[in-house]
Amino acid sequence: MDHSLSTLFQARYGAAAPEAAIPSNAVLEALLSHRSVRAFLPDALPEGTLETLVAAGQSAGTSSNLQAWSVVAVEDPARRARLAELAGRQGFVAKAPLFLCFIADTSRLRRLGERQGQPMEGLDYLEAFIVAAVDAALAAQNIVVAAESLGLGTVYVGALRNKPEEVGVELGLPPGAVALFGLCVGRPDPAAPAAQIKPRLPQATVLHRERYDASAEAAAVEDYDNTLAGFSTAQGIGAQGWVGRMLKRVGTAADLHGRDTMKATLRRMGFPLR
Amino acid sequence: MDHSLSTLFQARYGAAAPEAAIPSNAVLEALLSHRSVRAFLPDALPEGTLETLVAAGQSAGTSSNLQAWSVVAVEDPARRARLAELAGRQGFVAKAPLFLCFIADTSRLRRLGERQGQPMEGLDYLEAFIVAAVDAALAAQNIVVAAESLGLGTVYVGALRNKPEEVGVELGLPPGAVALFGLCVGRPDPAAPAAQIKPRLPQATVLHRERYDASAEAAAVEDYDNTLAGFSTAQGIGAQGWVGRMLKRVGTAADLHGRDTMKATLRRMGFPLR
Repeated sequence: MDHSLSTLFQARYGAAAPEAAIPSNAVLEALLSHRSVRAFLPDALPEGTLETLVAAGQSAGTSSNLQAWSVVAVEDPARRARLAELAGRQGFVAKAPLFLCFIADTSRLRRLGERQGQPMEGLDYLEAFIVAAVDAALAAQNIVVAAESLGLGTVYVGALRNKPEEVGVELGLPPGAVALFGLCVGRPDPAAPAAQIKPRLPQATVLHRERYDASAEAAAVEDYDNTLAGFSTAQGIGAQGWVGRMLKRVGTAADLHGRDTMKATLRRMGFPLR
Repeated sequence: MDHSLSTLFQARYGAAAPEAAIPSNAVLEALLSHRSVRAFLPDALPEGTLETLVAAGQSAGTSSNLQAWSVVAVEDPARRARLAELAGRQGFVAKAPLFLCFIADTSRLRRLGERQGQPMEGLDYLEAFIVAAVDAALAAQNIVVAAESLGLGTVYVGALRNKPEEVGVELGLPPGAVALFGLCVGRPDPAAPAAQIKPRLPQATVLHRERYDASAEAAAVEDYDNTLAGFSTAQGIGAQGWVGRMLKRVGTAADLHGRDTMKATLRRMGFPLR
């Protein structure tokens, strides 16, 4: 058993950790060590960092090589402050030196069709939005892994979906392009408490073999609720478990912070979603 | 300039490669070296591989810790063959020893709500499907990176969306769960020609600074069309550029291979998409 991988499994799953049965390596340890960082030094990133991150992002898979995503890199402090305001007033969006806005982008293919005199009817369907969203997410995750390998910290900002049209105006997005989520990138502030590895649901609830099986789920979720409450207590943010948070996050339409109008909004932004 | 990173940038972008201005590391080189593998040895993976891959997947970010994804790991050869048939008869799906089906999964949160006597109304919205799709994609990309670090090859299989209901029946998916895409995992067949790094669009078309800017796009896309045609010729699959492929892939509804009915299908599968 590899000690470091085993330690990382323990941090990720607590008592429910699977055995670390295979030899570890630097990439696995980097992936397993991930934690979100929300306190950043304001220092600009070294020259060439952004290009390297984007190259990592473009190296991810993309559906049929459509490459239906873009990224808008925001460094201007005033724009970061405006985006922080739009994204539920999350102060760290203004503080991180680089804020990446990940765009589900069918507009590039539309423009290609226009130049070729071809309507690109396939882009009118929900399927095209799914492709663009998945492409953007695959690229983003590679960028997170690349950033962490450079000693940088990151945190995703889903609240960029609270006001997609306002964000689109701020970023000058054309029709058929929407900011799906943001990513703060910067050097972690050493004066802030170090971010810890967050426990996740026991593997048995997420990993199914051959066919989906939820028979052991209720007990596993209860265990996880306790694990997460213990983690939260240790982090000094109160004994919040998973169940209560989930009920508060998707219990009612109001919990979506305006995202219950997403379908109409996307249609206005050039995604017909047929 | 780091030589190896520079070489990888060249492979990814051809003549349009940005300068590799920062020191490289093992993780960056792994990310930049990605290529899809479609020829696998049939050998089963070492014990503990699957659990390690899933731990890497669960270490990715997830919207508000909702963890709205699952993975069904298919090893049974008969089931792999049936899934290969459903996924556009892609033979490598049947040949790879492990086929991972990534599930956008709101059903776990629905079941939680049922146990708590809470309707979970937020899950009725398109937003919930977006969260689940993004969660699944972030996890999947971490799994790709982890698999490659273990010397394994992978290829995404989007064609699992051609027949989502049939795939759902095969995998026993409950309402509110849909297989978004698959991933073949296995040891690359050394007898097959080695997969090469595929060129992507020039960075300037994907990376925007401060605001979206498509002014240099048409020329960059033309360059890329030539780069990709050259790559295809070198791979022995004819001088196919990007533009022609894109027109064939999203030009008409028929090009979507049945995915033009995705919205109605998802509704039948328990995603109201309000």
